[in-house]
Amino acid sequence: MGGNSFGKLFTVTTFGESHGPALGAVVDGCPAGVPLSREEIRSELARRRPGGGGASTTRSEADEPEILSGVFEGKTLGTPIAIIIRNAGARSSDYDALKDGYRPGHADWCWEAKYGLRDHRGGGRTSGRETAGRVIGGAVAKAFLVLSRISFRAWLQNAEGVADKAAALRGEGDSVGGVVVCRVEGLPPGLGEPVFGKLDAAIAGAMLSIGAVKGVEFGAGFAATDMRGSEHNDALLPAGDVWWRKDLPPGVPAASFASNHSGGVLGGLSNGMPLEFKVAFKPVPSIGREQKTIDRWGTPVPLTVRGRHDVCVCPRALVVVEAMAAIVIADLLLQNRAARV
Amino acid sequence: MGGNSFGKLFTVTTFGESHGPALGAVVDGCPAGVPLSREEIRSELARRRPGGGGASTTRSEADEPEILSGVFEGKTLGTPIAIIIRNAGARSSDYDALKDGYRPGHADWCWEAKYGLRDHRGGGRTSGRETAGRVIGGAVAKAFLVLSRISFRAWLQNAEGVADKAAALRGEGDSVGGVVVCRVEGLPPGLGEPVFGKLDAAIAGAMLSIGAVKGVEFGAGFAATDMRGSEHNDALLPAGDVWWRKDLPPGVPAASFASNHSGGVLGGLSNGMPLEFKVAFKPVPSIGREQKTIDRWGTPVPLTVRGRHDVCVCPRALVVVEAMAAIVIADLLLQNRAARV
Amino acid sequence: MGGNSFGKLFTVTTFGESHGPALGAVVDGCPAGVPLSREEIRSELARRRPGGGGASTTRSEADEPEILSGVFEGKTLGTPIAIIIRNAGARSSDYDALKDGYRPGHADWCWEAKYGLRDHRGGGRTSGRETAGRVIGGAVAKAFLVLSRISFRAWLQNAEGVADKAAALRGEGDSVGGVVVCRVEGLPPGLGEPVFGKLDAAIAGAMLSIGAVKGVEFGAGFAATDMRGSEHNDALLPAGDVWWRKDLPPGVPAASFASNHSGGVLGGLSNGMPLEFKVAFKPVPSIGREQKTIDRWGTPVPLTVRGRHDVCVCPRALVVVEAMAAIVIADLLLQNRAARV
Amino acid sequence: MGGNSFGKLFTVTTFGESHGPALGAVVDGCPAGVPLSREEIRSELARRRPGGGGASTTRSEADEPEILSGVFEGKTLGTPIAIIIRNAGARSSDYDALKDGYRPGHADWCWEAKYGLRDHRGGGRTSGRETAGRVIGGAVAKAFLVLSRISFRAWLQNAEGVADKAAALRGEGDSVGGVVVCRVEGLPPGLGEPVFGKLDAAIAGAMLSIGAVKGVEFGAGFAATDMRGSEHNDALLPAGDVWWRKDLPPGVPAASFASNHSGGVLGGLSNGMPLEFKVAFKPVPSIGREQKTIDRWGTPVPLTVRGRHDVCVCPRALVVVEAMAAIVIADLLLQNRAARV
Repeated sequence: MGGNSFGKLFTVTTFGESHGPALGAVVDGCPAGVPLSREEIRSELARRRPGGGGASTTRSEADEPEILSGVFEGKTLGTPIAIIIRNAGARSSDYDALKDGYRPGHADWCWEAKYGLRDHRGGGRTSGRETAGRVIGGAVAKAFLVLSRISFRAWLQNAEGVADKAAALRGEGDSVGGVVVCRVEGLPPGLGEPVFGKLDAAIAGAMLSIGAVKGVEFGAGFAATDMRGSEHNDALLPAGDVWWRKDLPPGVPAASFASNHSGGVLGGLSNGMPLEFKVAFKPVPSIGREQKTIDRWGTPVPLTVRGRHDVCVCPRALVVVEAMAAIVIADLLLQNRAARV
Repeated sequence: MGGNSFGKLFTVTTFGESHGPALGAVVDGCPAGVPLSREEIRSELARRRPGGGGASTTRSEADEPEILSGVFEGKTLGTPIAIIIRNAGARSSDYDALKDGYRPGHADWCWEAKYGLRDHRGGGRTSGRETAGRVIGGAVAKAFLVLSRISFRAWLQNAEGVADKAAALRGEGDSVGGVVVCRVEGLPPGLGEPVFGKLDAAIAGAMLSIGAVKGVEFGAGFAATDMRGSEHNDALLPAGDVWWRKDLPPGVPAASFASNHSGGVLGGLSNGMPLEFKVAFKPVPSIGREQKTIDRWGTPVPLTVRGRHDVCVCPRALVVVEAMAAIVIADLLLQNRAARV
Repeated sequence: MGGNSFGKLFTVTTFGESHGPALGAVVDGCPAGVPLSREEIRSELARRRPGGGGASTTRSEADEPEILSGVFEGKTLGTPIAIIIRNAGARSSDYDALKDGYRPGHADWCWEAKYGLRDHRGGGRTSGRETAGRVIGGAVAKAFLVLSRISFRAWLQNAEGVADKAAALRGEGDSVGGVVVCRVEGLPPGLGEPVFGKLDAAIAGAMLSIGAVKGVEFGAGFAATDMRGSEHNDALLPAGDVWWRKDLPPGVPAASFASNHSGGVLGGLSNGMPLEFKVAFKPVPSIGREQKTIDRWGTPVPLTVRGRHDVCVCPRALVVVEAMAAIVIADLLLQNRAARV
Repeated sequence: MGGNSFGKLFTVTTFGESHGPALGAVVDGCPAGVPLSREEIRSELARRRPGGGGASTTRSEADEPEILSGVFEGKTLGTPIAIIIRNAGARSSDYDALKDGYRPGHADWCWEAKYGLRDHRGGGRTSGRETAGRVIGGAVAKAFLVLSRISFRAWLQNAEGVADKAAALRGEGDSVGGVVVCRVEGLPPGLGEPVFGKLDAAIAGAMLSIGAVKGVEFGAGFAATDMRGSEHNDALLPAGDVWWRKDLPPGVPAASFASNHSGGVLGGLSNGMPLEFKVAFKPVPSIGREQKTIDRWGTPVPLTVRGRHDVCVCPRALVVVEAMAAIVIADLLLQNRAARV
């Protein structure tokens, strides 16, 4: 499985460069019989598009998804679901200056050091536009998971403060980061594959695979490092009326927890509480202010990034965070079916 | 690949319960010709053993590794390297009380909810003792990576403060967490597999797979969320005398960076700077103080965890953090050989 | 990695139903810098199209490939290469009768038993048309392997006899099978990953994944079961002027073999001789003669398959056999880069 | 997943050299709750040991398995099951002559060409003794599958004829091959993962991964290439009293087949009939007669293989064929749980 695929049973492969003909995703391993419509894909993609706020790029593409395979008469077939989006709004000429210079904060130079060549137009494969493929995968995962009443919600921590800052910085040609919080409800206990396939390990890998992410934490997270065990441990209680009680193995009592410092994950397994984690996004590296870099001959040059860019990527990233979480959960839910005889 | 294997080309599979006959690891995919001795494994394992400080458990096992396969006349054969450690110091009777009660902060209940049964002795597979297998894998990875001059160093942030706190809490039967910092030097640029196999994604997944870890961040990490793009971006400079210059593709100049807010990773690829990340460990959940929980019949009961436990797991976890990082790097270094024609 | 992906480092994912909007493939892990043109893909696809002979279906589609990603200025980028073909020549109404009946020799009923629903039009995903995606993957693999002077040639054993038989059977509404022989030249010694990733194991898995294949054998194959060891063993000789001599590890002499009963593979590794194997194709199951089957209510019914079908699939399968072999070899060639320090 | 692991959900990793300290297997992904005893492992291993007949080596080891992990109070825990066997009967001095010469029909030279070094004692990892790890994995798989009433039986085709030939050839220092037939009963319909994870593809890859195997065929196999479609197609019938009827998706009728030319697999999926396939084993390459080869300096030399070897490997290979089939089926049975919502 190449670096562009994610998941073991529910597998999402994304493809596409920012200014190539199209991008998309192939979802392999989605169970047969899931109701899935083009409209569901489209509405998730719409959440990734630049909004009306002051924080987003002014490049706006319709992002019309086309389902090429895997769906028949409104239901998934169990076969790979390929969905593409044509690239329409590309203004490659904006990027001509980047052909010879390496943008600070971007993978430009590392990419060339690895591959020897790159598509400089709009960042090619390293563009944030790559996340559209993830959103497609996430939309399919959500369509599957909604059948198990599992839901996802991500929001920007201190959204008002960030928006204020972003509005101010747009004028200066600068950018800002933010923290995205994500909460997953409806998880049955026991999801996650010890030892290396833990629920939190899978989520962490998924989050750090998003271009601008620099950190992730679960429940109390870094703050837990200052807590005592007696504070941090979540006490177990007899569970009330939980829907997953019938799915417990014989002889295992239903449990609940008096608090959720763990963020819903213990020893890498979901514990029936909401899964809660935070994701740190760095400030957008493409800024209008002049920066120091080198050109392709190794000579120091000043560089000003033109083109249309977000001041803060977080508002558009919410659906991406949810999508990656949904893909992880769909995969672990299927893997969990193999846990017992 | 089951949940107990990690890595794509350099693959480590660990096995073993805390109080079973033995635990160990199988390392598959280590290149042939790596000098490897039992002594290297043993000295890494010794770092994981309880130290003389006030923070560690008093259970101390010799942890004598036995190399069962894969090494011939002091060199790796290219075949799987199986190494085991016998469990000697187990006092299973300490855990009899845990057979019927679920420890807060542990996976006990989740494990039963998933599998329907568990080995309660010492936590079984969920014991911190499982990390011995990771240390074995890490020792092999390091033996391979030292040939490329890649080195690993982890330390406890504010070690003195944590030690003071741990010493105080031992008397109270309580525990404490901490932040482990890790630095990897000698990485050539370009390691990491976009999109989902990014260097930081792989490290993050590896770190969160360690039982007590609740967060990870790279470079400026969560603090980056408050920085401006113009502050956070690391300016590119012409590189000085770097050893990897000869390995760059034709026509690509060597670059260096004026700062390292990125923590050595850009767009998921190493950039030639030291890789730097921080790992949040929660306080040890096994504490001597009485806690609230339920028993296997769902009845609320008080529980006091006996047995020998760490007050702070961080000192012993340093080698585990390094081990997982080494396994990730070994894997990505091999994958990177396939990047260009 | 779902069931629609093949390969570990050089990974091909295919998608598409016979009568859906499009089918195609995503090739992930092709090294950067491989010259690749649309024309190369098209010419391989043309070999899979129905020929002028008497053995092929009369449905003929242009099979115009569109490269959506992964290629920039005529070279591969190291990113996933997505290529699609629109389905144009579909006459779904031919298949209306199949909606309610299960075709003998086809997966129709098994598919429903597994997934609960199916796209009956043209066999959906189980159609031979699925192999177009493999041919795309094979074309990319060949473009990479030609840089190492590795070449593929498949032919139909006793082609004249099969053609005669096929011509005769077309009139009777019946079909015939055949044996395809494949020879790969230019393999350096040492390709293959012991124990389970052997060269012949990978080729065998690849061949049996082709719909109509019922057997595979290497070198002397089944005939070897009647030979003595002293007959079958291929004696080693000092090698003459072999191009891969420079790639041997220090101290290892170049060897050749006096015969090739092994078919070029020893202990799962290529031995420098041509790789030779044979593939058994069953007669095409879609025949014009009336057959016994059951309908979707379990009632016995007679069934006559209409639509356009091959009398013998072998002529069109040659390029598919080559494609799968090329994908296997590309994958193992990349994996082999990790064999030694 | 390295070359020494097999399976996606039910994963078997084998390790060990013929004359190293021990060999064994780690089975990851076996569901929790499977009754498993050391005796079951031992009795399967006993079938692999040299028998009293004239066809087997006189080296005989007790092959006492030790279960190191994954089993608690007689049941599998859902954790990795590590089982080892100590190597006891090794007479390495028999192999001193092989240090400098490459045995015809063996991987000796290819191995050095790939890895640069090898353990020459008893063939190291390429020894038939490696299959003991597979038998361990197969024993665990069978313990799981017997719960679903799936059974395996392999036998030697024309066993009497082969035994006669083998007895005669032992005196001449020569060897002989044979065809092993395997039949799996009790498979529910629908096992197999289209497109590349087909049941027959997985079995074929598994069989060719056994050292001495040169071919595999399903049902009518190579003979099908001479049949007409109207002969080869197996007609569908309404099914009688089949146990898996209750597991069919709603609305799908139970089917049976009037014949089994397909060998129980259609379009890569099991069809409810017995799975039947044949495996071609080449004559044992280690023979007592003098052969031509080269030494490690590339000089032609005569070579006579000493040590204890089988005249025909087939009698001991029956359990290996069954083991690999069982591992494949266990894996596909678990994967199949993810097929539908």
